[in-house]
Amino acid sequence: MRTLKLTLQYDGSNYVGWQRQPAGQSVQGLIEDALLPIESRAVTVHGAGRTDAGVHALGQVASVSLAASLDAATLGRALNAVLPEDVRIIQVEEVAPSFHARFDARAKTYEYRILNAPFADAFLYRYAWHIPQPLDFERMRAAAAPLVGRHDFAAFQGSGAAVQSTERTIEDIAWEAGGTFDRPLVFRVTGDGFLRHMVRNIVGTLVEAGAGRLAPAQVRDILASRSRVQAGRTAPARGLFLAQVTY
Amino acid sequence: MRTLKLTLQYDGSNYVGWQRQPAGQSVQGLIEDALLPIESRAVTVHGAGRTDAGVHALGQVASVSLAASLDAATLGRALNAVLPEDVRIIQVEEVAPSFHARFDARAKTYEYRILNAPFADAFLYRYAWHIPQPLDFERMRAAAAPLVGRHDFAAFQGSGAAVQSTERTIEDIAWEAGGTFDRPLVFRVTGDGFLRHMVRNIVGTLVEAGAGRLAPAQVRDILASRSRVQAGRTAPARGLFLAQVTY
Repeated sequence: MRTLKLTLQYDGSNYVGWQRQPAGQSVQGLIEDALLPIESRAVTVHGAGRTDAGVHALGQVASVSLAASLDAATLGRALNAVLPEDVRIIQVEEVAPSFHARFDARAKTYEYRILNAPFADAFLYRYAWHIPQPLDFERMRAAAAPLVGRHDFAAFQGSGAAVQSTERTIEDIAWEAGGTFDRPLVFRVTGDGFLRHMVRNIVGTLVEAGAGRLAPAQVRDILASRSRVQAGRTAPARGLFLAQVTY
Repeated sequence: MRTLKLTLQYDGSNYVGWQRQPAGQSVQGLIEDALLPIESRAVTVHGAGRTDAGVHALGQVASVSLAASLDAATLGRALNAVLPEDVRIIQVEEVAPSFHARFDARAKTYEYRILNAPFADAFLYRYAWHIPQPLDFERMRAAAAPLVGRHDFAAFQGSGAAVQSTERTIEDIAWEAGGTFDRPLVFRVTGDGFLRHMVRNIVGTLVEAGAGRLAPAQVRDILASRSRVQAGRTAPARGLFLAQVTY
């Protein structure tokens, strides 16, 4: 048996998310199904992060143990030949047998795209949150600053999650300006782990600050409150991308 | 009656093209249908260029004469409220009654996107031609140079077109390097008019040069031959965008 590390991209618009669900098409299910004829048995593919329905990936990582002797490049081509065009394997590497995409991940980077323009965009509607009223990016930057570091992010955790600790470390937050076709505003956050809906709840809160409905200094209080009701709304799934997983 | 100039964007993936067809959904048909309840009668919307099935627009222009007294901004919002998300009106202006989007167009700019990377892209597959073998961009630039200026472009005209003259002027050709997500190679061409499939046949020929199957100097001979069989294959519709119409 060999362990393989798959790096993949997907447009999440048409899927119920990464994880296999009782109903609906998942990305995990697509890859496991594509491996069936190669491996002649059911295999489980472990993803680094469980992206929700409608969330995209530029660099999701998955691990799988296979008996099949195909070399890495051939396996990548074989999978891409049967996967739909909106799911692409971009790299296949043979790794140490102990490698596990989720447990070994040291950090993850998510991107969230916002189109801050009067009109929506015919190309970005699946890939960005369209906000027509002008946002003050300096206020959003100021509001984001207190989030960097090790904190209890309970105030930014979506309901329905069962985790032992809500402490996480955000290593970096960066912004890239934009506003035209294929150049929306990009919010990029790197951390050692993220709670359910954490990135989308952070973005929703920063947008409140950018729209002038929240003072940037209040973000520190929201964090300290550890109460979900203090933070802003959950930003829509369509703008979120799992950009990179670091090992 | 007032004449209105509409500037619009569309993702052409799901449409039979700009022009109304006996079967299938066209962009022109969508806009004319959206105007019906506003105008309470059938109107004809004239587009600057007839984009083919699968071809996109970043800045298509259309003109229409309306009796309805809605101001321009309200009309834009009313249309966007009923149009599908992949068709967006980005500007509405009241213009001189004689204005006609097609007859008054002085120049048009098209963009063609090529993803020159080993793997296809889960996000660009509807918006770029994926070419896995490496292309020599310097050869493509050299091959494009003889096309600038006034020429008989009969060799680059698709079949089935009935035009009086095949002479056109290409004012400018530009390239923008790229290769990653939302940054494919962009070929940008501006001219006073384009024959049927002309941009896609030019791109197909330049790709032949970039792949080493055609010497850049041969482009001058292909142009002089005025024979379609001399030029390269027609590049796929998915990579083409009507970017701008100048009046």
